[in-house]
Amino acid sequence: MTTQATALATRPGAELDQLLAAASDAAPALRATRPDDRARMLRSVAEALESAAEELVPLAAEETNLAHARLTGELKRTTFQLRLFAEVVEEGSYLEAMIDHADAEWGMGPRPDLRRMLVPLGPVLVFAASNFPFAFSVAGGDTASALAAGCPVIVKGHSGHPRLSQLCAELVREGLTAAGAPDGAFALVSGTETGVEALRDQRVKAASFTGSVPVGRRLHDIAATRPTPIPFYGELGSLNPAFVTRRAVAARGEHIAHGFVASYTLGAGQFCTKPGFLFLPEGHGLDAALVDASRAVEGARLLNDRITEGYAGAIEALTAIDGVEVLVAPRRTTDGVVTPTLVRTTAATLAERADELLEERFGPATVVVEWADGDDLLAAAELFEGNLTATIHAEDDDAQALAPLLALLEERAGRLVWNGWPTGVSVTWAMHHGGPWPATTASIHTSVGTTAVRRYLRPVSYQDTPHALLPEELRDDNPLGLPRRVDGVLRLAAGGA
Amino acid sequence: MTTQATALATRPGAELDQLLAAASDAAPALRATRPDDRARMLRSVAEALESAAEELVPLAAEETNLAHARLTGELKRTTFQLRLFAEVVEEGSYLEAMIDHADAEWGMGPRPDLRRMLVPLGPVLVFAASNFPFAFSVAGGDTASALAAGCPVIVKGHSGHPRLSQLCAELVREGLTAAGAPDGAFALVSGTETGVEALRDQRVKAASFTGSVPVGRRLHDIAATRPTPIPFYGELGSLNPAFVTRRAVAARGEHIAHGFVASYTLGAGQFCTKPGFLFLPEGHGLDAALVDASRAVEGARLLNDRITEGYAGAIEALTAIDGVEVLVAPRRTTDGVVTPTLVRTTAATLAERADELLEERFGPATVVVEWADGDDLLAAAELFEGNLTATIHAEDDDAQALAPLLALLEERAGRLVWNGWPTGVSVTWAMHHGGPWPATTASIHTSVGTTAVRRYLRPVSYQDTPHALLPEELRDDNPLGLPRRVDGVLRLAAGGA
Repeated sequence: MTTQATALATRPGAELDQLLAAASDAAPALRATRPDDRARMLRSVAEALESAAEELVPLAAEETNLAHARLTGELKRTTFQLRLFAEVVEEGSYLEAMIDHADAEWGMGPRPDLRRMLVPLGPVLVFAASNFPFAFSVAGGDTASALAAGCPVIVKGHSGHPRLSQLCAELVREGLTAAGAPDGAFALVSGTETGVEALRDQRVKAASFTGSVPVGRRLHDIAATRPTPIPFYGELGSLNPAFVTRRAVAARGEHIAHGFVASYTLGAGQFCTKPGFLFLPEGHGLDAALVDASRAVEGARLLNDRITEGYAGAIEALTAIDGVEVLVAPRRTTDGVVTPTLVRTTAATLAERADELLEERFGPATVVVEWADGDDLLAAAELFEGNLTATIHAEDDDAQALAPLLALLEERAGRLVWNGWPTGVSVTWAMHHGGPWPATTASIHTSVGTTAVRRYLRPVSYQDTPHALLPEELRDDNPLGLPRRVDGVLRLAAGGA
Repeated sequence: MTTQATALATRPGAELDQLLAAASDAAPALRATRPDDRARMLRSVAEALESAAEELVPLAAEETNLAHARLTGELKRTTFQLRLFAEVVEEGSYLEAMIDHADAEWGMGPRPDLRRMLVPLGPVLVFAASNFPFAFSVAGGDTASALAAGCPVIVKGHSGHPRLSQLCAELVREGLTAAGAPDGAFALVSGTETGVEALRDQRVKAASFTGSVPVGRRLHDIAATRPTPIPFYGELGSLNPAFVTRRAVAARGEHIAHGFVASYTLGAGQFCTKPGFLFLPEGHGLDAALVDASRAVEGARLLNDRITEGYAGAIEALTAIDGVEVLVAPRRTTDGVVTPTLVRTTAATLAERADELLEERFGPATVVVEWADGDDLLAAAELFEGNLTATIHAEDDDAQALAPLLALLEERAGRLVWNGWPTGVSVTWAMHHGGPWPATTASIHTSVGTTAVRRYLRPVSYQDTPHALLPEELRDDNPLGLPRRVDGVLRLAAGGA
């Protein structure tokens, strides 16, 4: 299997050109597939991945240093996600089908018959992430949602898990082929240069990315400034502040401390939703709990050497900042195992040294910030730019007083977590995984949850088009039983127009 | 009134800064307005505009050279549009409210309570167009949809109709104030430099533009490459090809010729949907009809001198292309009145000289392209980049044979018009006014129709948030009676979760 899989990786130039041509050729065929065909493809890919779980998980563990249990859970999430998108495709709301019948009495003057739905953009380029080798990689959410939309996918695999990427790519192709997908519907490429060349290629109609701010910024600018700009959906970085009220500390301080430590050290702190800042009221008395819990966390190897170096550098810089006190210092062992880092500072210091302090630190490091009063907290929250999440721990009696903080955080984050922790992103209809820059490059979109499919679709309106030439989705008799808006009125699935 | 109105225009620097600060301050208040409040604001603006129709139309005519009847219709469209967005706000689907209750049995593992809706982005900068002094200017679709979304609006007025812009701005403010909108919800600025400075300002969260490809490209790149990139919704240019079958010529050639001439000369050809290319089968025999109808069109003055110069230059270049035959030459009179230009070429010449021929020519000019067989037509259609519209004139018996052309045009245009003409864009739920680059900078969005509101909204998910702090839109009892998706199932307005 490995030999075949290796053949899926590619280099820039003629090889890439061939894959892009195949993707471009596959686009009309994939677009023409019926919803049940496409749902079958997604489920077939899920099955192919599941059938190889015993090979996938150990390989992922070997290449990423992540624990088997975590990887098994992530693989389950990945196959669940593929099946959820199959449901999305079958349900059909995502097409936003609308029919406005001709109306001679329309308020601004007679209107023609107009029928609108969303159609796929065409080949999508997905830059895989290192930290979720299944869920944000070759067969992850971007791939699943692009295929659900009816777009061919070219994944630029992450160099951190090349063999896993190739195996996953083979399984995706196997699943797609078994379900009758057109050739060219999926390909894997590798290498930075190849990724950039593909991003510049006119056959690529949209791109997605999960990674760092500098790389994401560079790719975003390439996508935006090419002769024909394309949408670029990048998830770049997030600090995920968590705010705790006095009442919450009084009611369940220890519980919060333990939950926090579990969250910031989960997956060795290599989640984009890791809480990087915990705001506690002065005199919280939780130092011992935080320190003990952090010290109790087993050391772990990070995803790769580059990230391990980055973590060491970030901790060095963090602990050197004036006004930052180290509560738990990292122990770095010779075998590359790292342990948590916990530092403390004040809201005043944060305000003074925001430029140095407000940085994402990839790995199990976090900053406790002590605040003195409510205004302090609000002022500190204002320092944050866009984030994927913001968390509040509070008691019911705090609710009224917290409204201003909540309003402020709504402007700065894509998901507000109440009395919980931001790690562990559920894949559901109502999940939003996104946020204002620099959390993402496109805050009006999500990379997780069913609405992620929207990123790869564009509307087309058909004016006075004969039924014989209309897509089934827009015919009066509604053969696909779609939910549609007819003459401005939303109608549930079933029944014609 | 004129004196007051003049005070609304502004310059870069401190004056602009003050307006941006006011817009930024107004954002939370506008966001906090209830749907019925916001609907009232939109209707109040419509009323203010209507009440001043007798002043507005002559002023618009004076500044744009457009006819009174056309301007009266455009004003009607503009006020209709504001009221339609009021309906959109009241209906509430646009919020995409979703509730996923906590579920311990969720397939990928227990999920928390998640509730998602769209919230306004914040201050929106609108670059007004010259060619629709009402519908795509100060109080046009971009402004209406941004206000509907709950975003403050700053319009960079078009220099082509400065006094009208100021009067409209005053009426918009009057309408907003009467309906209780916060100060700072709307402002007008003027001048290219001011517009660019505003576009670079961090308080501006999105921008919209209608205009030329070079200017749109420049502004798009500024928006995309600022330190914090923002969405830029630009409508840049479109050729709007129309394809006619042999059967259609045989059945109603003269009718098509007349309809075409009326469409390409409507508003003196200054519409973004003007059909710039008409594909006729060889031997169509419609030369006389096309020529006579074009000659019968009265001359008209274009929007301004710059456009008049541009038209003259474009015609000179067009008629100098090898293989282009002039059927109707423009008469240009001393008082700036221009008349239609009609040229003819072949599909073969178009293929050979696509770079020169496939250009937008603002004004009453168009190109007839003669094709020999169906493959010829398909090959010609493939030469086109993104367009707002593509038109087909055919008979029922053509339907089957035209499927490949239709599929090709779906990839290249936002609206497909059957046996009609692309000019005259109706404002409805199912209208799409957009298309692949260079028709627009963001093909997944529309600038006309009710879904235009989506451009100014981003999702937020609330995880396990107490009811007391949830937006009304997401409370179980559904006090606003919104259509919502609950646990994956779409529910029509009314009833709780």
